[in-house]
Amino acid sequence: MEIKVILLQHTQEPERVVAQAAKLCYSAVGLEAIAEKLTPEKTAGFIQTLAQMGHLSAFEHAGFTFGIEGVSRALTHQLVRHRLASFSQQSQRYVTLREFPYITPPSLAQKPELKKRFDETLNSLGQAYGELLAAGIPAEDARYLLPNACETKIVVSMNARELLHFFALRCCNRAQWEIHALADEMLRVVKPVAPALFAQAGPGCVSGACPEGKMSCGNMAEVREKYAR
Amino acid sequence: MEIKVILLQHTQEPERVVAQAAKLCYSAVGLEAIAEKLTPEKTAGFIQTLAQMGHLSAFEHAGFTFGIEGVSRALTHQLVRHRLASFSQQSQRYVTLREFPYITPPSLAQKPELKKRFDETLNSLGQAYGELLAAGIPAEDARYLLPNACETKIVVSMNARELLHFFALRCCNRAQWEIHALADEMLRVVKPVAPALFAQAGPGCVSGACPEGKMSCGNMAEVREKYAR
Amino acid sequence: MEIKVILLQHTQEPERVVAQAAKLCYSAVGLEAIAEKLTPEKTAGFIQTLAQMGHLSAFEHAGFTFGIEGVSRALTHQLVRHRLASFSQQSQRYVTLREFPYITPPSLAQKPELKKRFDETLNSLGQAYGELLAAGIPAEDARYLLPNACETKIVVSMNARELLHFFALRCCNRAQWEIHALADEMLRVVKPVAPALFAQAGPGCVSGACPEGKMSCGNMAEVREKYAR
Amino acid sequence: MEIKVILLQHTQEPERVVAQAAKLCYSAVGLEAIAEKLTPEKTAGFIQTLAQMGHLSAFEHAGFTFGIEGVSRALTHQLVRHRLASFSQQSQRYVTLREFPYITPPSLAQKPELKKRFDETLNSLGQAYGELLAAGIPAEDARYLLPNACETKIVVSMNARELLHFFALRCCNRAQWEIHALADEMLRVVKPVAPALFAQAGPGCVSGACPEGKMSCGNMAEVREKYAR
Repeated sequence: MEIKVILLQHTQEPERVVAQAAKLCYSAVGLEAIAEKLTPEKTAGFIQTLAQMGHLSAFEHAGFTFGIEGVSRALTHQLVRHRLASFSQQSQRYVTLREFPYITPPSLAQKPELKKRFDETLNSLGQAYGELLAAGIPAEDARYLLPNACETKIVVSMNARELLHFFALRCCNRAQWEIHALADEMLRVVKPVAPALFAQAGPGCVSGACPEGKMSCGNMAEVREKYAR
Repeated sequence: MEIKVILLQHTQEPERVVAQAAKLCYSAVGLEAIAEKLTPEKTAGFIQTLAQMGHLSAFEHAGFTFGIEGVSRALTHQLVRHRLASFSQQSQRYVTLREFPYITPPSLAQKPELKKRFDETLNSLGQAYGELLAAGIPAEDARYLLPNACETKIVVSMNARELLHFFALRCCNRAQWEIHALADEMLRVVKPVAPALFAQAGPGCVSGACPEGKMSCGNMAEVREKYAR
Repeated sequence: MEIKVILLQHTQEPERVVAQAAKLCYSAVGLEAIAEKLTPEKTAGFIQTLAQMGHLSAFEHAGFTFGIEGVSRALTHQLVRHRLASFSQQSQRYVTLREFPYITPPSLAQKPELKKRFDETLNSLGQAYGELLAAGIPAEDARYLLPNACETKIVVSMNARELLHFFALRCCNRAQWEIHALADEMLRVVKPVAPALFAQAGPGCVSGACPEGKMSCGNMAEVREKYAR
Repeated sequence: MEIKVILLQHTQEPERVVAQAAKLCYSAVGLEAIAEKLTPEKTAGFIQTLAQMGHLSAFEHAGFTFGIEGVSRALTHQLVRHRLASFSQQSQRYVTLREFPYITPPSLAQKPELKKRFDETLNSLGQAYGELLAAGIPAEDARYLLPNACETKIVVSMNARELLHFFALRCCNRAQWEIHALADEMLRVVKPVAPALFAQAGPGCVSGACPEGKMSCGNMAEVREKYAR
């Protein structure tokens, strides 16, 4: 299964509302007068100034909602630890997963014999899951057999400030591969909608020193080039 | 000064995204298949069912950003206690308030003599504030003279779930008059944009018993009629 | 495996600090003068008044930290959705689970044949997991095989207000059996430490009508008796 | 008036619970086995390692509750913008402030003539406030006259992670003088109770480069010495 990310909805004119709100803090005039002077160029320039100074509180006014499919329950157990976010996830208590799609780690995909062992184990597990259901065990109990690899679908809302934090942690080469791939994909779909808000998005090393210290991947030049696109 | 509330921006298609996310939790199919079946009528009906059952988590995917002017610092000190929200407020540290508009409580507006005392006090206070500034005291210190009545401007973002909670507390007749007026105005501007999400919005008594117990205003019939509009 | 809950630590004198903070809101005197008058009896009485009026904000000053073992990853995926809480969980990325303990749903425990099928499936899964590790697959990838049933350990901190909300949702007969059992156990260990704060703790029906409407378990008398202890 | 900060209560053994929780994430053994090995020295050393790596999530298990008096409403309007905290504040709606103490900014205290102007203005304001009350205006409306300088009392709870963030922002020389003084005082009372948790507490420059860029105070050597004590 492939990760699939759709930007379902977002705040209209996300950069305009961020700039308008941030300008209010330092302005003697009202919101309409501020809005009149906000050309797209001024908006983008002002947002980049805010980002460079780390004045990110106004970035919270821009919200983004993602539809995510083709990810594992291993990933979502980690994803929902982000508390400044809203989640709606397909329930294994209420939804019976007859087809049972799952995610295969790349380290297995490259080793045919181990991948075969992985697939056979999950197939026999899927068979046992089906038998328990057929014997009258409720889905919410039969699911105790289901593996971390199990595919799930989830809707996630975060604001731009929290997204920048999410990208800083999860686009890092030291992040777990699946949530790293998800974060990259979320950044890919959100960047065209709000290019100024996400101009500096990416792992910590994109806009400063590597925060991982001794654990650094050591490939900062490559990483910076990737996220500068 | 009059309260002025503008709905600056909001999540596009707020009701559609809430319904789509909520349906995902109980659905074996994916987000696109869910979206295809979502007519406006089905969306509205489903949202009202969610509201009646108190299943409000998917309401968080719909965000709303309000521009608010003509309110007092007494009000905003109370408003910013709502922690599931984002705020950008005109700063008294950085903005010098030469004109010094202020909010007059209705209990004073009706008593000309007391209102005169109120106005005179605030005028002499404004004069002292100006003198301190002229003598070189920084605005951030001169503002220690400024009263709670002082007008302020603020941008507020909340999601629909938090807004319903805000309205439940602040549209109540026992809420303080100014934040009650603000909440009514916020509800007035947001309801046309998402009528199903806010169909049951209002104080607690709109959808159940009065939660104030012995402190109840006792006018539930009138209140319910007001918020049913 | 049995659920095991330890109250690791908590705010010292949790009821005293809640009462002191709540009294401050309505008092012209300072914190020391308030503290002097707070006998244990007055504290308990005042807290129960706050609880009955639903004035719970001061309950946030009392925090509780639980050590939890013997629960499944199915449970913790649900538990960590509570966002007003702090979590530290045993990592399947870094910890290799050689013994692989797991949780068996009661619906299976009562049916020997199905339980045997469940156990055999998990044993063969554990064997495959071990083989992947032995073949050099990293633990963070081999764990994609691990089931929801897998035992995990987690430390959870919540304040008293959030705990009351947690108990209201999770002590309900309609909650999933495992998180219901956890919530009951958390309530059992926390109640002796702060009996007034948790006097009305339990599912929604303990202090009012059943909030589940048509989905009600219908056993409110029994439930109320259970949580009155 | 002088700022007065009391550490009202805190999590028992705050450093022990943080270390125990953090160790659980990477440990194959249970909480009791972890606790047995935790000598005070190991605990302190482990916490400092966590702090240096920026792995602060376990710091959330240690909570601290402060009683604060002798601060202005200007300060608390700023303080309550910290959303990962709990607050109980003396209410100007319910408490009639007959004595009306207030905070004088140092920039005024040093200029006798301006200070006299400040005092006279606030005295006449206090008189008007008293007259409105005597004429039957409710306290919640008469308070619209009360100034930012007005003294208030507040109880604040934050966990150690949020406190470190609070100190990073508010102990900075660029922070407003009154909240800077409060933060210094909060750090002074909390440090003896949890010296390892707060070993690196202070403005951003204490553990790295100055985050203020061009706006830097330029006195990093002095600042670092102050917070190293």
